[in-house]
Amino acid sequence: MPFHSHPVMPKGYGCTSRSCGLKPGGEPDLSLFVSAVDAAAAALFTRNHFAGAPVVLGRETIRGGVLRAIFANSKISNVGMGEAGLVAARRMAAAAAAEVGTTPDRVLVGSTGVIGVPLPIEAIERGVAGMAAELGSDPVAGARGIMTTDTRPKALSLDAGEATVTVVAKGAGMVAPNMATMLAYIFTDASIGADRLHVLLTGAARDSFNMLSIDTDTSTSDTCVIMANGVAGAVDERAFEVALREACTRMAERLARDAEGATKLLRVMVRGAASDAEARRIARAVVDSPLIKTMAYGADPNVGRLLMAVGKCVDCAVTPASMRAWINRVLVIENGTRAPFDEPVVRRLLAGDPVDIEIDVAAGESQATAYGCDLTEGYITENASYYSS
Amino acid sequence: MPFHSHPVMPKGYGCTSRSCGLKPGGEPDLSLFVSAVDAAAAALFTRNHFAGAPVVLGRETIRGGVLRAIFANSKISNVGMGEAGLVAARRMAAAAAAEVGTTPDRVLVGSTGVIGVPLPIEAIERGVAGMAAELGSDPVAGARGIMTTDTRPKALSLDAGEATVTVVAKGAGMVAPNMATMLAYIFTDASIGADRLHVLLTGAARDSFNMLSIDTDTSTSDTCVIMANGVAGAVDERAFEVALREACTRMAERLARDAEGATKLLRVMVRGAASDAEARRIARAVVDSPLIKTMAYGADPNVGRLLMAVGKCVDCAVTPASMRAWINRVLVIENGTRAPFDEPVVRRLLAGDPVDIEIDVAAGESQATAYGCDLTEGYITENASYYSS
Repeated sequence: MPFHSHPVMPKGYGCTSRSCGLKPGGEPDLSLFVSAVDAAAAALFTRNHFAGAPVVLGRETIRGGVLRAIFANSKISNVGMGEAGLVAARRMAAAAAAEVGTTPDRVLVGSTGVIGVPLPIEAIERGVAGMAAELGSDPVAGARGIMTTDTRPKALSLDAGEATVTVVAKGAGMVAPNMATMLAYIFTDASIGADRLHVLLTGAARDSFNMLSIDTDTSTSDTCVIMANGVAGAVDERAFEVALREACTRMAERLARDAEGATKLLRVMVRGAASDAEARRIARAVVDSPLIKTMAYGADPNVGRLLMAVGKCVDCAVTPASMRAWINRVLVIENGTRAPFDEPVVRRLLAGDPVDIEIDVAAGESQATAYGCDLTEGYITENASYYSS
Repeated sequence: MPFHSHPVMPKGYGCTSRSCGLKPGGEPDLSLFVSAVDAAAAALFTRNHFAGAPVVLGRETIRGGVLRAIFANSKISNVGMGEAGLVAARRMAAAAAAEVGTTPDRVLVGSTGVIGVPLPIEAIERGVAGMAAELGSDPVAGARGIMTTDTRPKALSLDAGEATVTVVAKGAGMVAPNMATMLAYIFTDASIGADRLHVLLTGAARDSFNMLSIDTDTSTSDTCVIMANGVAGAVDERAFEVALREACTRMAERLARDAEGATKLLRVMVRGAASDAEARRIARAVVDSPLIKTMAYGADPNVGRLLMAVGKCVDCAVTPASMRAWINRVLVIENGTRAPFDEPVVRRLLAGDPVDIEIDVAAGESQATAYGCDLTEGYITENASYYSS
């Protein structure tokens, strides 16, 4: 697919980041994304019972199917704050709406960071003032304000005919189906109605963000939004669908590779499953297995663990005696037992990035791919003191 | 409950460990447990699709309801070896039967360690010769031969009226429901029939080993066996049931505390759930959450993570606005939001052992407790190179 070497906001969009003092050292903690004209929009949100105030408000906002802007802060997530949290989220939307010249019901807000701490809404309101004058075309600039433990801002662009699809995202931990990413903002200048956008977004997320799992924990703030402002006109919907899925999949891989402490991307493709649902379940079980994740980290070809990880899916059909598995295309499991592979070769493949595990469970015709990462000391270090640091 | 300060094998049992060269440095790698007379017996096994050969054979053996001995090795698990594995398991049973003077169908065998490597059966056959002459009454001696990454042998004894219940176990990783422990061997001199033993064991395991989760990975070798040789005569069954459950729960706690890299026991008690099944699901989700585990390790009172971990159980009933939670009896979540607790106090409690998390999800009357541990750099280090070391 034709990914741009330098991502760019599609026609009619601008974005920027700024510090309002939530993060130490003047690091950007606010991001603003604006379309010059009203855009059709759709969104998917976390299913966590304790959805944050921005998610509660976002579900209401997206019902209108129209957005002009997305406004988000990092460092504090505005989750678990009750009615006060919802008031703060509404004030955030109002402040951004005033800044960009629209109504609050056309601004989707997001917050990411520590749970259970009041949002410093006055600082955010002061912070957004003047941001509209700083809007630019570089999505990386917009990505900076939503970073938490991400080591780098994440943005990519892809052509879809005459239109462009750009994804800006953050999400380095507390990432698991469903939804997988904490914040993923997608912009296109294609002309597509809100209802179709919802269908296309759901399909694209199903095989990308919803198959991404960093640590099995599901954020209370996960949000995936798409805006389509129509500035580039109509597009071939099938081509757009392919581009959108490809863009989301590539971003899911980037999120996995930049997960907390991760040193590499881990992809697990399961085929021969009895159903789509079982293929997805097994692929996720393997990509989530701490013993598979540490095997990838240590480059230790303890491939028997693949039997364990597949076998623990006790409710999925598996034919143990016929199971096969490959690591980066080298056969390591055959007939449910260790194949006579070249250990130094597999050790070298496991030491690389990405590690691609392919598994045939010999029970049917379905397949699915899950995205994850290795588990390292870095994950422990970051999460043992996230709140205090 | 009256736990013995020094565990002892019940009347009529002896055990010992020995090295047959599987482990380096002459560390014991064989364990033999023998009853002087035939004992009624029951067992529970892993549900993993890739059950090891000792489990396949064990399911057949336990159908007879009678055991004289348990014979196990560590370092190599005899899993994923196909027909050759089963032949090796049968030879192990035959060798131990010859040594103790019984038939192979009265010997339950176990193997724990690396998956997918052939069992050195000749070394094991040579190794068992003469072990019967070394049987002693100290269960700790028997526990040494089944250790893998355990840092210490695990055995405990408890009175049940005139009888004694002794549990010997190992299991430091790859431990998750169902079954939770890799190998747990229970001995009693009470007189109880095999069918009743199965019912009692299932009940005791349900609230102990099956609520223990170290890393969500399920071993292919998990086995929990009980032998009752009747030497101490009949017992009050209700008192025995209580003692058995208590013994299994205490052993589950020990397994959790000695898990790979763990520094402390984590207990999560969920109440107010809509059903027993939901109470168990939520308790396990919290005890398994990497972000809760690292919070316990780092003693970082990032209690908002409790909302996330409970909330991710999207298919369980939870009343977010009424949820409460306590850490070692200090209220930290009230009405679904952070309570105004004393941070230094909670930090100190989190730094201790055990960490007891209690959660009221305000949706019903059911409760359950799950057992786990913190997640540390030690887990990563051990599992990134287990095969090679």
